[in-house]
Amino acid sequence: MFRKVSTLLIASLLSFGANAQPKGKREPLVTQEQGSFLVGGTTLTEPGKFEVANALKPQGQTLHGDHAYAFYQIPVKAHKYPLVFLHGAGESKKTWESTPDGREGFQTIFLRRGYGVYLLDQPRRGEAGKSTVATTITPTPDEQFWFTQFRIGNYPDYFPGSQFPKDTAALEQFFRQMTPNTGAFDANIVSNACSKLFDRIGDGILITHSQGGGIGWFTAIKNPKVKAVIAYEPFSSFVFPAGELPKPIQSASLFGELKGVEIPLSDFEKLTRIPIIIYYGDNIADQPTTVWNKDHWRAGLEMAKIWAATINKHGGHAKVVHLPDLGIKGNTHFPFSDLNNLQIADLLSDFLRENNLNK
Amino acid sequence: MFRKVSTLLIASLLSFGANAQPKGKREPLVTQEQGSFLVGGTTLTEPGKFEVANALKPQGQTLHGDHAYAFYQIPVKAHKYPLVFLHGAGESKKTWESTPDGREGFQTIFLRRGYGVYLLDQPRRGEAGKSTVATTITPTPDEQFWFTQFRIGNYPDYFPGSQFPKDTAALEQFFRQMTPNTGAFDANIVSNACSKLFDRIGDGILITHSQGGGIGWFTAIKNPKVKAVIAYEPFSSFVFPAGELPKPIQSASLFGELKGVEIPLSDFEKLTRIPIIIYYGDNIADQPTTVWNKDHWRAGLEMAKIWAATINKHGGHAKVVHLPDLGIKGNTHFPFSDLNNLQIADLLSDFLRENNLNK
Repeated sequence: MFRKVSTLLIASLLSFGANAQPKGKREPLVTQEQGSFLVGGTTLTEPGKFEVANALKPQGQTLHGDHAYAFYQIPVKAHKYPLVFLHGAGESKKTWESTPDGREGFQTIFLRRGYGVYLLDQPRRGEAGKSTVATTITPTPDEQFWFTQFRIGNYPDYFPGSQFPKDTAALEQFFRQMTPNTGAFDANIVSNACSKLFDRIGDGILITHSQGGGIGWFTAIKNPKVKAVIAYEPFSSFVFPAGELPKPIQSASLFGELKGVEIPLSDFEKLTRIPIIIYYGDNIADQPTTVWNKDHWRAGLEMAKIWAATINKHGGHAKVVHLPDLGIKGNTHFPFSDLNNLQIADLLSDFLRENNLNK
Repeated sequence: MFRKVSTLLIASLLSFGANAQPKGKREPLVTQEQGSFLVGGTTLTEPGKFEVANALKPQGQTLHGDHAYAFYQIPVKAHKYPLVFLHGAGESKKTWESTPDGREGFQTIFLRRGYGVYLLDQPRRGEAGKSTVATTITPTPDEQFWFTQFRIGNYPDYFPGSQFPKDTAALEQFFRQMTPNTGAFDANIVSNACSKLFDRIGDGILITHSQGGGIGWFTAIKNPKVKAVIAYEPFSSFVFPAGELPKPIQSASLFGELKGVEIPLSDFEKLTRIPIIIYYGDNIADQPTTVWNKDHWRAGLEMAKIWAATINKHGGHAKVVHLPDLGIKGNTHFPFSDLNNLQIADLLSDFLRENNLNK
């Protein structure tokens, strides 16, 4: 899979258009700095005093857990605001790295476009596996469910024109990249760690996927250093001011009806002060259907539109983009790693530019 | 934390001495390619037929697990052999990234020195969390034990002259970077996945830490694409030909006596065909003592010397380096992230050059 390249032409890098989609070899990446750290979390301390002679006893010992993990890369001459990427349920930061068929993911695409990029593993997932609560992990054959839930198709059939690569190796990578919780998902713990990340790095832009969507809203409420939120296919945890909850949306979703979450108006208003954009892909029903995956996402898309309208009614700047409305067809639940992910990246670049976030 | 740099001079990168230890800002990293993938593993399939209408039932569904995860970066004009890094017990690929106090780890140091770098999460750890076996994870306060076991000192005291950074933030990072198994450790599964990685990437050099040491021997036995092994502080799983097992080494280690592992001579001989080097740090007893951490590693170092002598008796090329013998003092169980890790990296660079592995 590796391309042998022996030339190094920085000049060509600098002339590399943001929207170019080169086939074959890529120009070198030029990075000022990269690294990783743990951020946020809590500490348990067992009462008593630690004694080296009794080091296998817990007395006086600590457990640090519930932090997030971040891997970051900062390009030379970076834009002012870095991009912080948070994965969805069952995923890790891998979501944003190489696509299942080995193309560049948003991590590298946006590094090329001059943004500092932070990829998070949320608390109790991936490299941030150390949890303060116990859990049991049971291997469960469920990948055909996820294939269908994530709108690659209705297993074993791909949706016609699906933007998911059709080779079996790519599908195997997709299945293997899921990784379990090492402790129960806790939106408060995850958003606390995300907020601590922004305390550490300063102003930036938060990009979420799926279950991460709710974390995006909570983090932006907790921390004004979040200067914009981009959400790919959020589903749960749409937050509304007290007294303005819409009625639950019924659907054929296997997850049941979709409810909003009530929060104080003063918190909700914090979300009206930043630009927010939400993207949904294709094969979402436009009216109720018994096809449960298409109907699940119909409910999500409908709730997202109600939510954005509520944000905007309160003076905010939220927008919902249903990609087929732009003529962009075939996207799954993972538009940022689909075959047309450079086109999806271009939309994000446009959003950042239009909101003067690409300084 | 980020340094602003506005100049980009590839010439200065190319003239950047391998052993330079610049203070302050670093030259930009120039990378030809980066990405990630899952490799190896197995697949469970539940009998029956998957039906979209019964998608929450396991029938006909699969679970892909027990793979490794790899994040790779290939510099421009890379040396012929990439370096593959495997972490130890309780750790992830984070081990090789930023040090606990935020300096560059071996990932970035060796990328700067022109090597392709692959960091692995072994099966059932980190981003490779999907396991084919169930497990229960119980939060256990044990960090003061690990501080001591890993020879940072005898908690709460640092060893005099310890190369571990003394600030509390670094120690917190160190504690948080440990991450649990999501399934039982299985040396055969881990070495199978490592071997599959070499099948994918071709010839390369394997660098292991601690528990990963045994995986290094098993991987090199399984796959002739492993052209050298560098092991930092291996402990268990020293392999000997049938009939040549040394007697177990008694010590005050909390893990009990240290035994070798018997393997067929034909497998052992595969380890005599490649250069192998083993490094141990400081504060290891030179004779039996009741100080259990110093004595644990005395047993490891003694066994390593017996092992290397056995390799060499069979015509191999193994060497054990006890860093204090070179006048390098204060190293913990993690020499590659200690304060003097550039000096430790220089030793590795020397080894690669001396063995013509830096082509």
